[in-house]
Amino acid sequence: MPAQGALLKLEGSPVAEALYAELHAQLAGLTFVPRLHVVRLGEDPASVSYVRLKDRQAKKLGLQSEVTVLPESTSQGELLALIHQLNADQNVDGILVQFPVPKHISPKTVLEAIRPDKDVDGLHPINVGRLWSGEECLESCTPAGVMRLLNHYGFSVAGKEVVIVGRSNLVGKPLAALMLRSDATVTLAHSKTPDLVAVTRRADILVAAAGRAGLIKSSMVRPGAVVVDVGVNRVGEKLVGDVDPGVAHVAGALSPVPGGVGPMTVAMLLSNTVKAAIRRRDASAMV
Amino acid sequence: MPAQGALLKLEGSPVAEALYAELHAQLAGLTFVPRLHVVRLGEDPASVSYVRLKDRQAKKLGLQSEVTVLPESTSQGELLALIHQLNADQNVDGILVQFPVPKHISPKTVLEAIRPDKDVDGLHPINVGRLWSGEECLESCTPAGVMRLLNHYGFSVAGKEVVIVGRSNLVGKPLAALMLRSDATVTLAHSKTPDLVAVTRRADILVAAAGRAGLIKSSMVRPGAVVVDVGVNRVGEKLVGDVDPGVAHVAGALSPVPGGVGPMTVAMLLSNTVKAAIRRRDASAMV
Repeated sequence: MPAQGALLKLEGSPVAEALYAELHAQLAGLTFVPRLHVVRLGEDPASVSYVRLKDRQAKKLGLQSEVTVLPESTSQGELLALIHQLNADQNVDGILVQFPVPKHISPKTVLEAIRPDKDVDGLHPINVGRLWSGEECLESCTPAGVMRLLNHYGFSVAGKEVVIVGRSNLVGKPLAALMLRSDATVTLAHSKTPDLVAVTRRADILVAAAGRAGLIKSSMVRPGAVVVDVGVNRVGEKLVGDVDPGVAHVAGALSPVPGGVGPMTVAMLLSNTVKAAIRRRDASAMV
Repeated sequence: MPAQGALLKLEGSPVAEALYAELHAQLAGLTFVPRLHVVRLGEDPASVSYVRLKDRQAKKLGLQSEVTVLPESTSQGELLALIHQLNADQNVDGILVQFPVPKHISPKTVLEAIRPDKDVDGLHPINVGRLWSGEECLESCTPAGVMRLLNHYGFSVAGKEVVIVGRSNLVGKPLAALMLRSDATVTLAHSKTPDLVAVTRRADILVAAAGRAGLIKSSMVRPGAVVVDVGVNRVGEKLVGDVDPGVAHVAGALSPVPGGVGPMTVAMLLSNTVKAAIRRRDASAMV
């Protein structure tokens, strides 16, 4: 852990760029161009901007990328029909349905409809189950991005006390699996944890993934700890994380919002797309 | 938590009997008799005795139960052929392959071959993934048994500090999912945790599932804590848990080995068999 007072900023962009360079080299050796297909329903501004970012980065990396935009009123059956078509399309390597989906559509049904070997978001239950069973799988993007971010800046999690605040399917839980696999002692805390301060102050590495602006105050952080802020909260016009700015005076390292974990999530999505393409076209099918 | 000095013994048998009574009543209302099919390979003495116990309890409860014993030399292909046949057999509700399997057979391949809706051990990755995703699934038997044991003796885990020592696919990890779902703050510790004592002493509820005889000493237990011993270790002729006998003088409650979690595991297996039968024959298929 770095010494107190010398804050290291865990910027995501250089880490994402390093990964893009690796992927670029990998792509040069392939006889095909992996293809990502993103589906968006409705015009939620955050979804519009996320999908645009993913599409742009995919193309910049040299992948094929296509976006299907469906109206908010699309029925679940229509969405499932599109997913089945993409599942069957030999040219499509990665399928991502941008969440949240409209209320009349079941997220669970959508996730289970995507072929596991094209599930580049790593959210199909069989990918989640393989992750927890220690098997090869497509890993959930944000947690995989957090691991790579820490690794890039030289932080090993083995033998460390890692505290994750937030137990979402998207971040907290799969990140716990990855941390555990890397030999961290892992604690999952959440909104029902009575004495959150006592728990977070134990952390050598503290991950804030609760989705509550400014939840983690400086008093909750052990001096010198590494703090990863996964929160993305809109406060007025601003994007802020789950970590209060005052934590910068206590932590040894801190990932900024925006610019920390965010770029990693997109990079891991594209990494998953390349991985999925190579595996599937290799005919060493994962089911 | 009970007061220090008054040790409550968390006996599994009365809890298992209460569950059997519930299942018995449930079976009386069915037009069919659920059927469990257990496959054992080779003559490992522990496996022989576990399988006999499961078969006997299943029959005692009034289920159909069949055991196929194959020689240790059975090929993976032969085992998979049997599993496919059991998958397709409309009369078979639950399939269990007793682990460990011989070294020339891949446990992963065996687990993934079993139809998820007949996977009464709850170890197929899709059941693991559904468990972690908060969806309906067949839950892994021992962890489900631990939850029911605690519940029966009046211990709520919500808001409690739960420390699980051991990160196996069979116990530690799925138990963390169940504890988390019930609002515990959950820590997974393991052989690479540097200061295990500091971690275990935080626990309101401490679960020992490392598979190391006597690992948990009294100095590692907070006075009055609830201690669940999932360990089953053969020391000479004796079965002993992961918890040192001295812990009885410190803990507020302790599950014995044998006679604590063991009976619960078998009971949950039969409960899963009934659940699987009702769901599948209901035609509300789970895939």
